[in-house]
Amino acid sequence: MEKIQLNEDRFFDSDPAIRRIARDLYEGVKDLPIVSPHGHVNPRLFAGNEPFPDPTALILIPDHYIFRMLYSQGIPLENLGIPATDDAEVEQDHRKIWQILGDHFYLFGGTPTGIWLQHEFYYVFGVEEKFTGESAMRIYDRIQEKLQAPAYLPRALFDRFNIEVLTTTDGAADSLQYHDEIRRSGWRGNIIPCFRPDAVTNLLTNGWRQNITELSRISGISIDSYSRFMQALAERRAFFKSMGAVSTDQGVFSPYTHELSGTEVELIFERALLGRATQQDADLFTAHVLMEMARMSVKDDLVMQIHPGSFRNHNRFILRRFGADKGCDIPVQTEYTKNLYELLDKYGDNRKFTLIVFTLDESAYSRELAPLAGHYPALKLGPPWWFHDSIEGMTRFRRCVTETAGIYNTVGFNDDTRAFPSIPARHDLARRMDCNYLAGLVARYIIDKNDARQMSRQLAYDLVKKAYKLEGSFDVVS
Amino acid sequence: MEKIQLNEDRFFDSDPAIRRIARDLYEGVKDLPIVSPHGHVNPRLFAGNEPFPDPTALILIPDHYIFRMLYSQGIPLENLGIPATDDAEVEQDHRKIWQILGDHFYLFGGTPTGIWLQHEFYYVFGVEEKFTGESAMRIYDRIQEKLQAPAYLPRALFDRFNIEVLTTTDGAADSLQYHDEIRRSGWRGNIIPCFRPDAVTNLLTNGWRQNITELSRISGISIDSYSRFMQALAERRAFFKSMGAVSTDQGVFSPYTHELSGTEVELIFERALLGRATQQDADLFTAHVLMEMARMSVKDDLVMQIHPGSFRNHNRFILRRFGADKGCDIPVQTEYTKNLYELLDKYGDNRKFTLIVFTLDESAYSRELAPLAGHYPALKLGPPWWFHDSIEGMTRFRRCVTETAGIYNTVGFNDDTRAFPSIPARHDLARRMDCNYLAGLVARYIIDKNDARQMSRQLAYDLVKKAYKLEGSFDVVS
Amino acid sequence: MEKIQLNEDRFFDSDPAIRRIARDLYEGVKDLPIVSPHGHVNPRLFAGNEPFPDPTALILIPDHYIFRMLYSQGIPLENLGIPATDDAEVEQDHRKIWQILGDHFYLFGGTPTGIWLQHEFYYVFGVEEKFTGESAMRIYDRIQEKLQAPAYLPRALFDRFNIEVLTTTDGAADSLQYHDEIRRSGWRGNIIPCFRPDAVTNLLTNGWRQNITELSRISGISIDSYSRFMQALAERRAFFKSMGAVSTDQGVFSPYTHELSGTEVELIFERALLGRATQQDADLFTAHVLMEMARMSVKDDLVMQIHPGSFRNHNRFILRRFGADKGCDIPVQTEYTKNLYELLDKYGDNRKFTLIVFTLDESAYSRELAPLAGHYPALKLGPPWWFHDSIEGMTRFRRCVTETAGIYNTVGFNDDTRAFPSIPARHDLARRMDCNYLAGLVARYIIDKNDARQMSRQLAYDLVKKAYKLEGSFDVVS
Repeated sequence: MEKIQLNEDRFFDSDPAIRRIARDLYEGVKDLPIVSPHGHVNPRLFAGNEPFPDPTALILIPDHYIFRMLYSQGIPLENLGIPATDDAEVEQDHRKIWQILGDHFYLFGGTPTGIWLQHEFYYVFGVEEKFTGESAMRIYDRIQEKLQAPAYLPRALFDRFNIEVLTTTDGAADSLQYHDEIRRSGWRGNIIPCFRPDAVTNLLTNGWRQNITELSRISGISIDSYSRFMQALAERRAFFKSMGAVSTDQGVFSPYTHELSGTEVELIFERALLGRATQQDADLFTAHVLMEMARMSVKDDLVMQIHPGSFRNHNRFILRRFGADKGCDIPVQTEYTKNLYELLDKYGDNRKFTLIVFTLDESAYSRELAPLAGHYPALKLGPPWWFHDSIEGMTRFRRCVTETAGIYNTVGFNDDTRAFPSIPARHDLARRMDCNYLAGLVARYIIDKNDARQMSRQLAYDLVKKAYKLEGSFDVVS
Repeated sequence: MEKIQLNEDRFFDSDPAIRRIARDLYEGVKDLPIVSPHGHVNPRLFAGNEPFPDPTALILIPDHYIFRMLYSQGIPLENLGIPATDDAEVEQDHRKIWQILGDHFYLFGGTPTGIWLQHEFYYVFGVEEKFTGESAMRIYDRIQEKLQAPAYLPRALFDRFNIEVLTTTDGAADSLQYHDEIRRSGWRGNIIPCFRPDAVTNLLTNGWRQNITELSRISGISIDSYSRFMQALAERRAFFKSMGAVSTDQGVFSPYTHELSGTEVELIFERALLGRATQQDADLFTAHVLMEMARMSVKDDLVMQIHPGSFRNHNRFILRRFGADKGCDIPVQTEYTKNLYELLDKYGDNRKFTLIVFTLDESAYSRELAPLAGHYPALKLGPPWWFHDSIEGMTRFRRCVTETAGIYNTVGFNDDTRAFPSIPARHDLARRMDCNYLAGLVARYIIDKNDARQMSRQLAYDLVKKAYKLEGSFDVVS
Repeated sequence: MEKIQLNEDRFFDSDPAIRRIARDLYEGVKDLPIVSPHGHVNPRLFAGNEPFPDPTALILIPDHYIFRMLYSQGIPLENLGIPATDDAEVEQDHRKIWQILGDHFYLFGGTPTGIWLQHEFYYVFGVEEKFTGESAMRIYDRIQEKLQAPAYLPRALFDRFNIEVLTTTDGAADSLQYHDEIRRSGWRGNIIPCFRPDAVTNLLTNGWRQNITELSRISGISIDSYSRFMQALAERRAFFKSMGAVSTDQGVFSPYTHELSGTEVELIFERALLGRATQQDADLFTAHVLMEMARMSVKDDLVMQIHPGSFRNHNRFILRRFGADKGCDIPVQTEYTKNLYELLDKYGDNRKFTLIVFTLDESAYSRELAPLAGHYPALKLGPPWWFHDSIEGMTRFRRCVTETAGIYNTVGFNDDTRAFPSIPARHDLARRMDCNYLAGLVARYIIDKNDARQMSRQLAYDLVKKAYKLEGSFDVVS
């Protein structure tokens, strides 16, 4: 058995001058509460507060970061227990699946997934040996045992993780039943929804017509026209807000923004209701909805988020057999300067409006996004997203963005995860990397130690609360 | 009062092996005269040689690098004294404005603007305390006091800064009156114009028709056709050259180059005179003028510069209220390989012609620009421009460009600034970063110390003089 | 005479923590045999096994990396002895040409070409002084003397370089006569062909009609239709395979993949035979052929390679006077996510198929290529190519790719060279950089030393053999 210890200085630059400062800055932020303003944890977890089933069901099966890598190396998703949409048989023996992960864990060398899992095993489950094919079953048993204990129930972990607020992502037609149950349960964990209407705003989404029916039902507004559709959206935003929401989110292929005339948009929506919307209809509709969401945000103060640039379900074979979100969403080149022009022209100077933009196209950091955020009062930059939520990704982000936009036009960290027990690992990594970045500035005499200390706290805690308008809503710790 | 000292090793890598070499290389170049071949300082400063009015008027109001950041954080430009085009009231109390800058100076942590200001305060004005809201008014008074002294008159600073040549940027219809006054004044400061005809070559410029009238008047050529237009341009180039110009410059949206037939271009120009030019007309005309400017450069030996890829006046609200150059120019993706094809095909092999290309799209460095400059004798790469005139920007530039194009296909540093007293700060930073880059090569045994010493001098002084054909025109110091 | 010594730690990070680990890892891989799965060495060298003529003919004249840099600085190719297609006179005095190289060798400071030449001089030819204008002729004489010795014959060098397999690149109509001669000679050097059909698949290639005639002749299949063309290709693939080929290669402008209908493709081919193919015909034909090559690879198991994104012969003046491959191929922006969609949709999930993709557009590394390779079982990423086969290029590649795709979806190193004696230099540099990258991970506690050791061996030796299906074909050393 190979014992491991996670080094206190991990991920910091190895240059002693930087490392010393980084460690010192990190000491000042590592215990701050976690604010998670964007993610995909299922609120049902905390409503039911049932024990997690087993390591494989908890860690591997819901995490496309993990199984896409195994798949890329030739392991069929069936062997990993990923449920097939056609009810084909998939591996049911979770111990066997876990063994496959152990046997192939070397694939994750140098990846954030490797780092997060190691952190999770070590700090959340107290596993002190290296994860390999040899140790896999011992580790499985160890985690399994823990999962039965009360200290490992979702709410207990939430408290232990010191999470001040956790934001989920919820569809426009979602009843927010679990958020409601959590509130009424008397438990004080702060779990709030985020309004993400993609399933009804993307006219070509699979099942769009059905989604509209759902939205009609839940909003009590019969959606037979675009204007009724917008009423329903407005109603839902108000409902989400009443349930604690502070933000909206939209995943779009392109960040193109453009206001259509009333007639144009009504006609497009009519075609959509008839099942005749074209790709161009859908693109224009999205561009228009982005304008409308901004307009509504100006009114109701919800922070607007855009996540563009992902070619969803690139692998149709996997989509057909296993559904969406299976590791086959691939980024594309994304243009911001021209595409956001109309929206920023209309709302970008509004100091009360906040638009947080994310990207999967790192070439836009220094070229488009930092210059835009370094000028428009409404625009802020989301942290490095998805594939770029990593040591090198965060380093590139800060290096490309800070010199033009400073740190105050960025918004702290988003863990963006479905994997609840990985949340501390992800925030810890982000805090380490931000401290390391600032330490590099101090070591080169670009900023002084006091400034760095201030900035490290901003990056770990203050900026996210300010950007997402969470200040004052909760008891602020520390 | 928090005393500060600028560390001698600032901006160098913190690794001692690199830092030691960087410092040593820097010692060899730090006192070389400044050659500033491209910038936006107003020549009137040196013709009149009047004292600068006050710190706010000198430092903040003309510098969009500064006020765009304040604006991005919600401070209206009115509060910063930026003159409104509609004569709306703006803050007149320069002390009050300065206090705002002090209160928000933390926003510039990690930005080149922060670094430049610190350098300027410390070395130009002898300010030895940290700039904060608390110290702001003391620093204001200190600078204000200095500005009254003869040693702080523009010409005295020019001499103290050890500027060998300073290039201004001047429109095609500019009389160069101030350049003339400087020459006739007997003062020996070398201030030369650069021919930038954008206001007459971009058919859709605001006021284009009026600009053409101006050009007619000053050239004595009545411009009623394209061919007369070209005559006027040629006349002005000759005049600029007689006034010491060694270069031209063009800011274009796209670097597309394409020669139109005589008929085509005449028709486009005719439409423009009638106020009927379309966007396509303007684009094609720019593409054609780039070809013509190259042709003329081959003849008259003026170095040709292109600055493409900026979406000017992205924020129309600011444009309407405060005019151009107010921090709202945002970069776009820029293609060079195909766009420069026709120009390079015709003139790129000409060893007497020099085309210096700049970019705001860093993804083009290693992909397009270094391979082009590493092949075509006529093509040289301008230094990292604007948002990329920074520690990380310069580092990325050298790392992306050198392995393919070497350093000898680059042209030293451009400060490109309107802010005269920031010139030493900017050149100092560039020299430090180039020395640091070379030190990194030495420390990894990629080049030896002697080569590095040679190269550091080339980057600080020799290359710029060679590229801009300034060799031999002046007494060479050192 | 300035003596030089190549430092044992060259190219490693100067930070002692990283350097120590890098050196240690490097010790473990530096003597592994060289596997060169993609390159442009002429097999005739090893068939004839004649002495190399002289340093200039061996080193400078065939290497566009070298003469493009000299050309960019104003030295005409005629002066460098590059043969002109019009039989114009070019310099014949190879000593004089070598002197020019020596006089300008400073241009290569900080470039991989400079590094490779230094390595080659030092280790292959025992030159221990710095290459300058002053030493140039002494070094010429030294190398010239060596070249006469039996130890410097091609086969002797091949053995001394410890090359386990060397892959050449050969046209579809190539007889592979030299490969055959090598086999029949009894010499055991393993030199295998790679099937590159560009000259017949790119309908607008200069001389395409003639190339088709050649292909008809050598395949014995009279190509008067697309279907006959495909038969001929299939026949040639089989022949190449019988001669040891394990891979195909295609240089394409765009990686667009699209299957045409039988009628469409026949009509396009017909137009091509009549000399009437349009640019669009050629583009579509390439897109279709990529699909067909994948289909055939699935059948015959040849690894498929694509090298897209080079604008070939950008400088028409040079093309007319000196032909292709003269340093005037310039990269362009390249899109992979959408362009490879159809091919990956059809073949990307096939675990027996291997598609290795290269790029000259580094912005695609983290945005498109790593996410694609981190998902599709069939897709692997080729090493940094051409302009990016360099210290910084390799560093950017690993940093941008590993966190998303790991190292196991990459394929080791390709030297891709025409310059046979530079092969050890190139592999040595790659091994150093990979070890240095891994050492950086160890020094930051991202991976442990044991993992790093494993991974360093994979990158130097195992991955390339696995990816190119070379395992088991030869005696594996070490």
